[in-house]
Amino acid sequence: MWMAELSSRTGLPVPTIKYYLREGLLHAGEATGITRAKYDESHIRRLKLIRALTDVAGLRLETVRQVLDDLEQAEDWHSAVGSAHTRLSVGTPDATSTSLARVDALLERSDWSLPRSSPHRSELAAALDTLDGLGHAADDALLDTYAVAMAEAASHEVANLPDDPESAAESAVVGTLLLEPVLLTIRRIAQENVSRVRG
Amino acid sequence: MWMAELSSRTGLPVPTIKYYLREGLLHAGEATGITRAKYDESHIRRLKLIRALTDVAGLRLETVRQVLDDLEQAEDWHSAVGSAHTRLSVGTPDATSTSLARVDALLERSDWSLPRSSPHRSELAAALDTLDGLGHAADDALLDTYAVAMAEAASHEVANLPDDPESAAESAVVGTLLLEPVLLTIRRIAQENVSRVRG
Repeated sequence: MWMAELSSRTGLPVPTIKYYLREGLLHAGEATGITRAKYDESHIRRLKLIRALTDVAGLRLETVRQVLDDLEQAEDWHSAVGSAHTRLSVGTPDATSTSLARVDALLERSDWSLPRSSPHRSELAAALDTLDGLGHAADDALLDTYAVAMAEAASHEVANLPDDPESAAESAVVGTLLLEPVLLTIRRIAQENVSRVRG
Repeated sequence: MWMAELSSRTGLPVPTIKYYLREGLLHAGEATGITRAKYDESHIRRLKLIRALTDVAGLRLETVRQVLDDLEQAEDWHSAVGSAHTRLSVGTPDATSTSLARVDALLERSDWSLPRSSPHRSELAAALDTLDGLGHAADDALLDTYAVAMAEAASHEVANLPDDPESAAESAVVGTLLLEPVLLTIRRIAQENVSRVRG
């Protein structure tokens, strides 16, 4: 299809699509002349993914580009998950040793391990410190409830993954980022229903 | 304490604190002269809450002000949760009737109800549409897994709430917003561990 159809089928203005092409977010079409190129379903699919990552997941374009680059280089689902998480991480915040020890204890209770380079340990510890500082500490029983629930959900997510590595890597990123609003909205519905019972 | 101590104890520059006072985010201190006022622990606590809502939960200052206003008017935990959720909602996105029907079916299976005015129904349906459009539909079994997990977590959160309404309302807001990064980080750790087993 030509650029005009790519635009009408995705609902994106032509200048926006050209911008993504220039920035390397969208792969080039098949050149059919100096200024014309033909596009296919893979371009439609990529444009939908870019928009979902910016509009729904709220990523900046530069982060989207890095996540998509990683996707193309990922050899399996596990490395795709790891690199997407690292890209999305906001750095390694400071955390108290008390909270870091609580995170390590949670990992041990859950029979989980984390690579040395993972930012999750300090991110989680810093989030616990924030709650502590406000006088609303999250207790270990709540952390365990979350851990059991998320292990169950992750098993379900992984069982549904496609077998070929490229689709699986894309699913990993979509599953990490775009299921977050689904999970958080369901959480709010659950909170409203539980709080209605309490009154 | 004077402004200087308020600043040193919270780590916030004096101009920032004065800005919050002018904008009505922070309640005035006890006036001791034309330009001097004394502050107490309630100011420290409020400043910590403001910074957590902006820095950790990523809210804009205008949203923080609305959430804090609601807190002061909330009569119970349930109305505090409801009004905080409404403030944080990004409007009512368009969703397909297919996805709306899936949300209604989920609510029925979970024995939950939602008020007519709730934005959650269309927000959740729109999130499902996004996943569908990318060819990564979330199946009902996954939604049920999330629902069961979040009902369990919400029961735990509510059981830990303080009894007096004002603290409970603040806990509701903190619990909704500041536990989200805790939950999502634990989710990522769970995903990495489950994906490592799959390879």
